[in-house]
Amino acid sequence: MFSLKARTHAVGVRNPKLKSFKTDHLYHIALDTAHNDLQEMFGDVKCVCFGGQPSRMERFTKLIREEFGLTPSNGEPPRNYAAGTDRYALYKAGPILAVSHGIGIPSLSVVFNEIVKLMYYAKCKDVTFFRIGTCGGVGLEPGTVVVTDKASILGKKVERPALANKELNAEILECVTETDEFKTVTGTTLCCDDFYEGQARLDGAFCDYEEEDKVRFLQFLKEKNICNIEMESLGFLAMCSSCKGAGLRGAVVCAILVDRLQGDYIINDIEKLHQWQARPQQLVLRYIKHKFGPQNGSL
Amino acid sequence: MFSLKARTHAVGVRNPKLKSFKTDHLYHIALDTAHNDLQEMFGDVKCVCFGGQPSRMERFTKLIREEFGLTPSNGEPPRNYAAGTDRYALYKAGPILAVSHGIGIPSLSVVFNEIVKLMYYAKCKDVTFFRIGTCGGVGLEPGTVVVTDKASILGKKVERPALANKELNAEILECVTETDEFKTVTGTTLCCDDFYEGQARLDGAFCDYEEEDKVRFLQFLKEKNICNIEMESLGFLAMCSSCKGAGLRGAVVCAILVDRLQGDYIINDIEKLHQWQARPQQLVLRYIKHKFGPQNGSL
Repeated sequence: MFSLKARTHAVGVRNPKLKSFKTDHLYHIALDTAHNDLQEMFGDVKCVCFGGQPSRMERFTKLIREEFGLTPSNGEPPRNYAAGTDRYALYKAGPILAVSHGIGIPSLSVVFNEIVKLMYYAKCKDVTFFRIGTCGGVGLEPGTVVVTDKASILGKKVERPALANKELNAEILECVTETDEFKTVTGTTLCCDDFYEGQARLDGAFCDYEEEDKVRFLQFLKEKNICNIEMESLGFLAMCSSCKGAGLRGAVVCAILVDRLQGDYIINDIEKLHQWQARPQQLVLRYIKHKFGPQNGSL
Repeated sequence: MFSLKARTHAVGVRNPKLKSFKTDHLYHIALDTAHNDLQEMFGDVKCVCFGGQPSRMERFTKLIREEFGLTPSNGEPPRNYAAGTDRYALYKAGPILAVSHGIGIPSLSVVFNEIVKLMYYAKCKDVTFFRIGTCGGVGLEPGTVVVTDKASILGKKVERPALANKELNAEILECVTETDEFKTVTGTTLCCDDFYEGQARLDGAFCDYEEEDKVRFLQFLKEKNICNIEMESLGFLAMCSSCKGAGLRGAVVCAILVDRLQGDYIINDIEKLHQWQARPQQLVLRYIKHKFGPQNGSL
């Protein structure tokens, strides 16, 4: 299914100044180069999975443990390596890191920077980043999984290319099977800086437009082939693109929680929500198994 | 010190559509109008204090309890009303709400919307919002507390006025005493969408500029009378301004953790950091005591 590349690339940073610092504090994840042996702790990392909430990333880590037979015999819960702060959470199972990024591009950008530096100090090679998240859909059924092929902000000049890595996306889509109980599609993701007004919702504390305006906006998105709407893809793919050729590539895989052509509200059925949120995790996990599973000798 | 106003204003929303919804889910704080009696739970709220981290807001809640003699005899820790999710945390002590907002304006805007709606459904009156946070300083000593008088983005058109409420700021500054072990100043706050490049730091994963460019940028900020730099003030004050006349006003009070003219790094001394972070809390707490303390019959 996948071919193993003969050449490897160490993760690099686009910042030559880091070499001149004696100590570097990864402040928001409470790690530093003086007190932590980052290479010893994280040198084997091959995949970093980002998601909004700490609890979701902890559950994902438990899933990886189960799937790869990595659950410790004492049943200890996964260690949060960023426990010195509660800004973000950082778990590890085998060569997989699971990181929470909060909501929105600014929040993501802070932890993304520090994770790239972490990979650099740990001397990791050929690392793949995933955002495994949730989103609204445009004319697509809730529960559908979307692999982003392009992230866009409409009506705004975007200076950094935020294109997905085609090769990686193709590999992820190869992991879709006919027996999946959910649909997986690929398409363009609209990235917004807000959940309410910015996404034309009618149920925020501020709303100066009418339902017709909202419908017109969403229809316009549909005509532009927008599949889904969330709040991090643009920054995520732009930063991954910036790292191209530096041992790092990334993809955005999100589950739709509401079809915005049908409404604004996310359903209240917690069990169903958990089921849907687990779908991008399942898909990415399948990719990880194919790529780094025992048959490839990496786990 | 303060005069009690005879007229009160119920907190309003700038969204007439809310009236037509049967149920409203405050999705990101896991509360809704169908299952929670929001007026019974939150109807007495007079102040909402926002801060980045859940743990800091929990500590702040404990401080309020102690100061106002509200600690329950069984010593139970403060209840997290948003425990159904881990996107944000929401604590309450007497008429004070303490809410975490994460990092950056998009993250803040989501919870700000839902808290305004919460105040509206709870029929709260004349509520004051505070952002109690941390920031970098421009030519000001770490540990200094800054009360924002204006939030700005340089070189970018800002369409919503993000001015502070002068009256409220004056009341806060009246709470500064000569015996304070820290300095409190008021001035303009630069609001950025990023912690690293956006704030001209040299220690991010990306850095395409030189130290001279950074120094020039910071000197430029100083000439423009920028006091401090953080990531939420602009959205916070803009949204508070949008609510003007609707029973809601707000202020931003932050502790400086690093003088950016001296460096990029936040010190590693956890105890000192905690001390500094507690200063805006102390100042706002003093304000709350003056305004809502026993002598005014509200607590």
